[in-house]
Amino acid sequence: MSGKEKSDCPINLSLEVIGDRWTLLIIRDMMFAGKKHFREFLQSEEGISSRTLADRLQALQDEGIVTRHDDPTHKLKAVYRLTSAGIDLLPILVNLGIWGNRYRPADPELGAIAEGLSADGAIEQMKRRLATEHLDPA
Amino acid sequence: MSGKEKSDCPINLSLEVIGDRWTLLIIRDMMFAGKKHFREFLQSEEGISSRTLADRLQALQDEGIVTRHDDPTHKLKAVYRLTSAGIDLLPILVNLGIWGNRYRPADPELGAIAEGLSADGAIEQMKRRLATEHLDPA
Repeated sequence: MSGKEKSDCPINLSLEVIGDRWTLLIIRDMMFAGKKHFREFLQSEEGISSRTLADRLQALQDEGIVTRHDDPTHKLKAVYRLTSAGIDLLPILVNLGIWGNRYRPADPELGAIAEGLSADGAIEQMKRRLATEHLDPA
Repeated sequence: MSGKEKSDCPINLSLEVIGDRWTLLIIRDMMFAGKKHFREFLQSEEGISSRTLADRLQALQDEGIVTRHDDPTHKLKAVYRLTSAGIDLLPILVNLGIWGNRYRPADPELGAIAEGLSADGAIEQMKRRLATEHLDPA
């Protein structure tokens, strides 16, 4: 522990970084909706505020989960991408989706996507696709 | 959706119920430390306050994740147990533990427990044990 953590339990340490619903919704948007611009995250149905979004994106960069680069095609835009640590959050998101599908009034189509990712090898396959898009983008 | 949810995305719906670090630390304590009394949760290293604990335990009961019963052996104590919906949160907790072990300065022994649960069938086996302890206690 570096001193600021409340315990060295691995579950607690993860929650200290991503245990905030807005943070995980941003990661969801990057993984499942291909979002990479500030304005795209703002448009998600849950209605994150511009201030919360800026705060969480900065925290995600500080923690090495997200990178920020200038967009070569839009001078004023930044592109946010996942690091490998960010991509490795996928099983957490998938299992949140599966639980939400089974116990909450979820959209059946979105629920089916989550359930589909519980198949053998599906998470690893999606991780490889995310790596291509985020770690080594064209 | 019943109207209060911000979207019917299954990930969002899960986070609306358990997207709070204290909530997941209580579930962790029930699953991995066998805690079932108010005072036991208070003693965890992260230092949850009595007020936050009471609030989160009530919310978990309202959402059907935790039950509260009188303790037959201690007149003044209540016993908190997981429902099947609560037990089904296990894969989320395990994957939080695995990520925390790989990317944060986690205790190696606790990290090894999380990694051990990534083995084929290990989560299902632990779910069965939790079901025996929580759904049909002696």
